[in-house]
Amino acid sequence: MTIAKTGNISPLDPAAAEPFYRQIYDRFRGAINSGLLKPGDRILSARALTKELGLARGTIDTAYSLLAAEGYIQARGQAGTIVTPGLRAPVASTAPSFQSSVPAVSFRPDSILPFQMGLPALDEFPRKIWARLGARCVRAMQPSDMTHPSVYGLPALRAEIAAYLQVSRGINCSPSQIFVTSGYRHTMELIGHALLKAGDRVLVEDPGYPPTRELLEHMQIAAVPVAIDGEGMVVAEGLKAAPRARAAVVTPAHQSPLCVSLSLPRRQALLEWAARNKAWIIEDDYDGEYRYVSRPLPALKSLDREGRVLYAGTFSKVLFPSIRLAYLVVPEAQVERFEEVSQVFAAGSPELTQAIVTAFIKEGHFARHIQRMRKLYAERREATTAGLESVLGNYLRIDPQPGGMHLILRLQDKRSDRRLVARMREEGLYGEALTNWTTGGGGASALLLNFTNVDSRRTAELLGKRILQLL
Amino acid sequence: MTIAKTGNISPLDPAAAEPFYRQIYDRFRGAINSGLLKPGDRILSARALTKELGLARGTIDTAYSLLAAEGYIQARGQAGTIVTPGLRAPVASTAPSFQSSVPAVSFRPDSILPFQMGLPALDEFPRKIWARLGARCVRAMQPSDMTHPSVYGLPALRAEIAAYLQVSRGINCSPSQIFVTSGYRHTMELIGHALLKAGDRVLVEDPGYPPTRELLEHMQIAAVPVAIDGEGMVVAEGLKAAPRARAAVVTPAHQSPLCVSLSLPRRQALLEWAARNKAWIIEDDYDGEYRYVSRPLPALKSLDREGRVLYAGTFSKVLFPSIRLAYLVVPEAQVERFEEVSQVFAAGSPELTQAIVTAFIKEGHFARHIQRMRKLYAERREATTAGLESVLGNYLRIDPQPGGMHLILRLQDKRSDRRLVARMREEGLYGEALTNWTTGGGGASALLLNFTNVDSRRTAELLGKRILQLL
Repeated sequence: MTIAKTGNISPLDPAAAEPFYRQIYDRFRGAINSGLLKPGDRILSARALTKELGLARGTIDTAYSLLAAEGYIQARGQAGTIVTPGLRAPVASTAPSFQSSVPAVSFRPDSILPFQMGLPALDEFPRKIWARLGARCVRAMQPSDMTHPSVYGLPALRAEIAAYLQVSRGINCSPSQIFVTSGYRHTMELIGHALLKAGDRVLVEDPGYPPTRELLEHMQIAAVPVAIDGEGMVVAEGLKAAPRARAAVVTPAHQSPLCVSLSLPRRQALLEWAARNKAWIIEDDYDGEYRYVSRPLPALKSLDREGRVLYAGTFSKVLFPSIRLAYLVVPEAQVERFEEVSQVFAAGSPELTQAIVTAFIKEGHFARHIQRMRKLYAERREATTAGLESVLGNYLRIDPQPGGMHLILRLQDKRSDRRLVARMREEGLYGEALTNWTTGGGGASALLLNFTNVDSRRTAELLGKRILQLL
Repeated sequence: MTIAKTGNISPLDPAAAEPFYRQIYDRFRGAINSGLLKPGDRILSARALTKELGLARGTIDTAYSLLAAEGYIQARGQAGTIVTPGLRAPVASTAPSFQSSVPAVSFRPDSILPFQMGLPALDEFPRKIWARLGARCVRAMQPSDMTHPSVYGLPALRAEIAAYLQVSRGINCSPSQIFVTSGYRHTMELIGHALLKAGDRVLVEDPGYPPTRELLEHMQIAAVPVAIDGEGMVVAEGLKAAPRARAAVVTPAHQSPLCVSLSLPRRQALLEWAARNKAWIIEDDYDGEYRYVSRPLPALKSLDREGRVLYAGTFSKVLFPSIRLAYLVVPEAQVERFEEVSQVFAAGSPELTQAIVTAFIKEGHFARHIQRMRKLYAERREATTAGLESVLGNYLRIDPQPGGMHLILRLQDKRSDRRLVARMREEGLYGEALTNWTTGGGGASALLLNFTNVDSRRTAELLGKRILQLL
């Protein structure tokens, strides 16, 4: 036995091709995989092992870091370092998963929590098709695909996005107006660099998606909260509060998080204001595809005759979040400005990811997937609503809403949504508190629960019962 | 024949499942692939076709955009729209390449120009191994790999980078100090958000990598140019010019573009200054691995006892640029600040790319690849130098240098490097002019030519003869 819990490690081989840290790593891994070291076993501290082996402390730290990152060991402060409790036995050595290239050890519990916000139905994603396209694209890689990619995005992908937006969201734009980004934050940053400056004021929805306010604040831009009613942002109120605002960030399809749609008069009022003041409207269309009561509404951008709307779309919700691919549509007159800013700041997205998505769209999988998900989400939404209402109906009221990926559960009796959410997290349930999405933390108390990964009414009832015990 | 050069297109099918733009696209593609339309043939303008078909202009534009993005057609201004000249006949329908998911048409000429800067030897990249790992990773994707990835980077990748930096660059750091980014620009932007503010002054190398100055200027940070001599940045001069500078950006391994190494006394002077003034040193180690006369120098970061150095590394040069993966090592005391900023601004990199790189490193391909490239580049550098000198020796002098990926050819007789570079680009040769890397465009005249893709002395001679004709 080369590794003991309390010492007696045999000397390393200075002549080996493998560096010391790797030899140490290999020994621990071997000992754990072979069962010599068992979950919960305490191992030598890095300090002690350093002394034992007479090596640099950094060498040991590196080996331990690798082991920890891959889930083999855990540092427990005063209690020392132990082999990760509950570590599963090696299953197979040929199927590495993303989180670790050590296939033998699964260390991450299923990381999707019930009701987790912002996730599409990951169990229903066509992974086989995706893997086929991915394997094909990675095999087809030629030297000319390995040079610096366009910082605006892969031309073929930009063209596919333009075509998709026309058919699906009523947006008429050319591929040159489309800038591929790595996500909403990157999109917002690009807009900030191109069109806004420190000290500007920008209207935001209240309640609204918290990262929008955070991003603006970090760019030294003042976010002016504007209330939401049944028609979406109360535009007149916002214009009164900040008539010289430089921009407004809105979620017209399904307001985030209240899911109401911005009414046509409000859309027109915003467009008129923007045209009159040369201000910008940033349309965050994060899940416009998911409307269940009627056809998806055309985007606000489709009404933009004066070139004032910047449209932010994303593949996070219609494909999956770890793809890190989103896009921005800019008015024709702003293309040059955004090209200039992209040349300075944009790094470009990996060509492989862009190639896979291009093939996925072009071959029709994308349109089919969205259609399937729209149907599935309508069912899961109904099942989740019914299941939760049957158990929790006396304590909360579920908002009716035309689309989106989450439910809004209004708490009765002035219960604190934050307290409930904190308790839910302790129990392995995910929920968000509406008051955390509201300026100053005030306003109505409600739970935001994603329903896209709840597979049946039965599951919803079971989850509802777990919530009931926490009320 | 459904598409004529001058009209007579048959009506589209409104009952078809395919939207109109796709029907138009399909017809043109079919006509081109079948040879009905030939390279150089003129096709109807979008305006004329709109009228002909009685459809919305946007529908035709979308179809034409797709065709243009995929290289089938080209708009030629007044001359109208034509089928791309030189379009090759369909070769195979099962090997799509990245730039297009239409496998039948190759529209992009080999996009690597001789001497193109910043590119590794793409012909020698182990593409088969890469494709195998890529296919394996994409097949192994589980729902838990599809959620939002860590904005700091995949834990297993951060651990591998930390281990690699210790062995290869002498840097002792924990995985938590490593932040995965999408490239140098993204890295610099993160540093800007975390540690700098508008109005700050930052020392930069002169001549130096132009994007560094551009980025700083766009962040409203004043770049203070500091001269380079045989020992790298003349630190004393910089400190005299801007004693209260908040940071210095340096390329210590091989100064970009002059390839000299920053001497130890200069490194110490920088470190002392930074410690005394609580300033930051940003070490851009873009190609530190590629040194041919001796072992690679340890990074400046390896001498950083006071936690003042931010180390920027990248996979663009040691793997390939279109991977869009780089990283930043921050001092331990700054980890929290960078985590905070990453939470706001970082979008995260695609999990797939990170998983492939992790496997590539862990299985030893990375270390082997760098070793092979170091040997290959030493050979190619020698061959390129010999080949160019034999032809151009009377007109220019090649700087001796210990490492890097490009040669510096000093032009004699006050010839303009810019004029020469412009002529070279017209002739399909890539070169950069040293004066474009110098503040105010002054300084010595020299060509910067990448040698990593020049495969032999014979090739270098041929390329040299083409340059000779342009002198």
